[in-house]
Amino acid sequence: MKERYFDDLKKGDRFQSEPLRVTEKELIEFAHRFDPQMFHLSRRRAERSIFKGLIASGWHTAAMSMRLFVQTLNFAEGAIGLGVDELRWPNAVRPGDMLSVETHIVKMRPSKSRPGQGIIRLRNVTTNQRGEVVQTMLASAMVPRRPPAEHTANLKQAKRGSRA
Amino acid sequence: MKERYFDDLKKGDRFQSEPLRVTEKELIEFAHRFDPQMFHLSRRRAERSIFKGLIASGWHTAAMSMRLFVQTLNFAEGAIGLGVDELRWPNAVRPGDMLSVETHIVKMRPSKSRPGQGIIRLRNVTTNQRGEVVQTMLASAMVPRRPPAEHTANLKQAKRGSRA
Repeated sequence: MKERYFDDLKKGDRFQSEPLRVTEKELIEFAHRFDPQMFHLSRRRAERSIFKGLIASGWHTAAMSMRLFVQTLNFAEGAIGLGVDELRWPNAVRPGDMLSVETHIVKMRPSKSRPGQGIIRLRNVTTNQRGEVVQTMLASAMVPRRPPAEHTANLKQAKRGSRA
Repeated sequence: MKERYFDDLKKGDRFQSEPLRVTEKELIEFAHRFDPQMFHLSRRRAERSIFKGLIASGWHTAAMSMRLFVQTLNFAEGAIGLGVDELRWPNAVRPGDMLSVETHIVKMRPSKSRPGQGIIRLRNVTTNQRGEVVQTMLASAMVPRRPPAEHTANLKQAKRGSRA
């Protein structure tokens, strides 16, 4: 798959990820490691909670959403998370759900301190197989600009094009 | 360990977690599953990145911080995350780091829609073994109030106390 640079994006762009299935085994495993609360750990005890069944940790949903975002955008050299705001989980994620992430590029600017990088502001919305929103967030990330050599080559090509 | 209720907390309370060690194996494993970018995955490639070595995914730091928070506060029936704001990672987490979380109760109010629950606003700060801040966040969580039976018992005890 093609690697992406800051320069390949523009404000308003939208990207849709592949779907990812949440298994009960993975949901419980994540909870044991990172969020050991009964509505994430035990089907029996979760049935008596206000959720009436097992639900994924919000941090598990966030981690799965990151995976889908990383796979979809596929930045050359990677995207460095600078911060996240307004992280919300409006609906529960349950075993067997199929999640997908839509990424919306909200703002972009070149980095002031690092000329080889750009800063993007994005909104990620994670939905399940019924189109219900299970997570929303705003994030800022630092992503690489296309290296100068390629820039020059592109410029040359553009000039050749304009002369033709 | 004692289970905690909304009614056991007050605004301004602070809690300090135990430390948690980040191993290189777990760091790489988390990245493979949820954040497959080269500065989280491969020591060799990470050395050539701007981090000059392997660093943990911010979502891994968030997940480990959740574990420390859950263990420290130990809410009866659990704490339900309503949302997170201003999640930041001011310093990188590296293999071998020892993380701990300080929780500060910023605000509290009884839930309007659920009389058995209260809403707390908290600030979690995760630091490493050198006292450097590796994560900060604000969060809102719904936590259980002490059940009515115990309330009544406490009231009776208080009344008896005031008569004495």
